[in-house]
Amino acid sequence: MTAQRRLVLASQSPARLGLLRNAGLAPEVIVSGVDEDAITAPTPAELARVLAEAKAGAVAARAEAAGALVVGCDSVLELDGRALGKPADAEDATARWKSMRGRSGVLRTGHCVIDTATGRSTSATASTTVRFGEPTDAEIAAYVASGEPLHVAGAFTLDGRSAPFVEGIDGDHGNVIGLSLPLLRRLLADLDTPITDLWV
Amino acid sequence: MTAQRRLVLASQSPARLGLLRNAGLAPEVIVSGVDEDAITAPTPAELARVLAEAKAGAVAARAEAAGALVVGCDSVLELDGRALGKPADAEDATARWKSMRGRSGVLRTGHCVIDTATGRSTSATASTTVRFGEPTDAEIAAYVASGEPLHVAGAFTLDGRSAPFVEGIDGDHGNVIGLSLPLLRRLLADLDTPITDLWV
Repeated sequence: MTAQRRLVLASQSPARLGLLRNAGLAPEVIVSGVDEDAITAPTPAELARVLAEAKAGAVAARAEAAGALVVGCDSVLELDGRALGKPADAEDATARWKSMRGRSGVLRTGHCVIDTATGRSTSATASTTVRFGEPTDAEIAAYVASGEPLHVAGAFTLDGRSAPFVEGIDGDHGNVIGLSLPLLRRLLADLDTPITDLWV
Repeated sequence: MTAQRRLVLASQSPARLGLLRNAGLAPEVIVSGVDEDAITAPTPAELARVLAEAKAGAVAARAEAAGALVVGCDSVLELDGRALGKPADAEDATARWKSMRGRSGVLRTGHCVIDTATGRSTSATASTTVRFGEPTDAEIAAYVASGEPLHVAGAFTLDGRSAPFVEGIDGDHGNVIGLSLPLLRRLLADLDTPITDLWV
């Protein structure tokens, strides 16, 4: 058995870090500093993948990531063909929830893994359908007042106060929270690393 | 605004407690002590509901739960019409994964809420389809060796080391982990309590 590979998460998202830790992994975190607003792509799915590649690439280029496997991710909510990131303010979050409730969107999360030891990389976007419930106006007001939706893509999270307002999903739930573990397993396998070899 | 209601979770599952806490709730835990093996029902979905009612009922009857809203849950994995609980041992967990991989099961979680202040109660089972991935024999061996599958219904969890081995779900992910927050929201609403009134 060879020495365990270092895993680096190119994201400051506590949700992504929590998903990886719960799955038995112990990544180091190095934040990319990529200017997300400077990057565009023809579709939300491609935008998520290109942003994930940009984040992973920026971190992989640093000396402190030498020899590590670097994972970058980016999430957007696609609704009516538009890519929605974090809401601008409380008013925007309220308006979004009033238009989302009772409908479905698609959470697209781009994933990129770079093996800095070999220079090989692989990337893909996973898509999960999200069926929003029908929170009342009072519930939406309470949720927005909690501050949570202002910090998350699509103005909701599956692992927070909005969980009761999402009826269900079709796909991988981690992908909605920020990182798809089954997709990460496949990307790591593409780079000849079984995910179980990264367990601590 | 009236004083906040006490919420009691009639379960020792850390996964259920974590789901509730992540959603902004702060339940007290009182374990029911119900003998699950002594209870039978004609279908896995009914079994999960009857067990949830038994757990909530046993706790609601205690003096320390007086005035509280009591939540009981029970989860089973239905595969080929059979209700699967925790595996008997490592050999059983290995055999189950070898038969589950590449297939789908249905996670049934019964939920019961009792308002001890009024004596009213309501219950239901939520069902979520789980599409298992195809872990290799080596991954299954590593997973069983981790000990995790021995402690969980169906020999897997969505929020642990087996997350990369589940391709996706159709339904609510919390229901697979042990408690459906959208269903809990509806059951609380049946008892005239908006879930947001329980936020801390």
